Amino acid sequence: MTIKRIDTNPRMSQAVVHNDTVYLAGQVGNAGDSVPAQTETILGHIDRLLAEVGSDKSRILQAIIWLDDMKDFAAMNEVWDAWVSPGNAPARACGEAKLATPEYLVEIIVIAAVD
Amino acid sequence: MTIKRIDTNPRMSQAVVHNDTVYLAGQVGNAGDSVPAQTETILGHIDRLLAEVGSDKSRILQAIIWLDDMKDFAAMNEVWDAWVSPGNAPARACGEAKLATPEYLVEIIVIAAVD
Amino acid sequence: MTIKRIDTNPRMSQAVVHNDTVYLAGQVGNAGDSVPAQTETILGHIDRLLAEVGSDKSRILQAIIWLDDMKDFAAMNEVWDAWVSPGNAPARACGEAKLATPEYLVEIIVIAAVD
Repeated sequence: MTIKRIDTNPRMSQAVVHNDTVYLAGQVGNAGDSVPAQTETILGHIDRLLAEVGSDKSRILQAIIWLDDMKDFAAMNEVWDAWVSPGNAPARACGEAKLATPEYLVEIIVIAAVD
Repeated sequence: MTIKRIDTNPRMSQAVVHNDTVYLAGQVGNAGDSVPAQTETILGHIDRLLAEVGSDKSRILQAIIWLDDMKDFAAMNEVWDAWVSPGNAPARACGEAKLATPEYLVEIIVIAAVD
Repeated sequence: MTIKRIDTNPRMSQAVVHNDTVYLAGQVGNAGDSVPAQTETILGHIDRLLAEVGSDKSRILQAIIWLDDMKDFAAMNEVWDAWVSPGNAPARACGEAKLATPEYLVEIIVIAAVD
């Protein structure tokens, strides 16, 4: 067994690699930004964290998306769809959930392959 | 590493197999149907997707269930309990979350073993 | 493949081990207790279940936390932060979701390494 952690603090790690699978912390954008801007920031965080562990968006297995308000579904999807690796889209689910602060409008939780 | 995807479009895949684990997209029923009917449809989708990757409901590891309204907990559970493979029930969690449209009343997200 | 289940009933198992990964059912505390007390109870359940399968909190990979009301974020975090294995914090996400009964204020869903 190997477990490797990235950006660990007393509450959470931003990424945890177990053998050939990586689990990312729920990624958020910048409070106060629009839904498209928060989504762009989140996807940038995901790209960066996956790169740090030797993976990339073509190897995402599962993505769970939380929206503060489902009215933002189309706005989030427009950014998401443009970002997804063509032919390599992950299993995905999207539900409405209030997040840590009311200014966070989107959160994305990813599991990806590393090997 | 092998990654195999089923029913992939530019947004998501309905199933992604990584080595010996499969991640299914959040499954929904038919908008407008009752909670039991939507649950039946969802469980049928799960059976079909698992069969396509060489798995079945006796090998589900984790199921996360979202209900549009927790008042439907008992109605969903009645269908769920009758469907579960006896002795092989997965780890499960159920929370309330508004879904992509108000007419979707149930969504189920599954991780299963494939080997 | 090996799949091992703990505390299985017709609806769910409290833990399912697949090879070197364990999936725990969403853990809840005692209805009527305060948020800190429910969180303590939940983390005790997680410790016990992980011990039963030969794991422990230093090997948690992902934790998804649902709060009935995000106003309890700080109260839950205080108990969580004191419990986490130093240097081994998991990937984590926390969102608001109503739970099976209104008296459940916290639910935590864990995936951990076993080997």
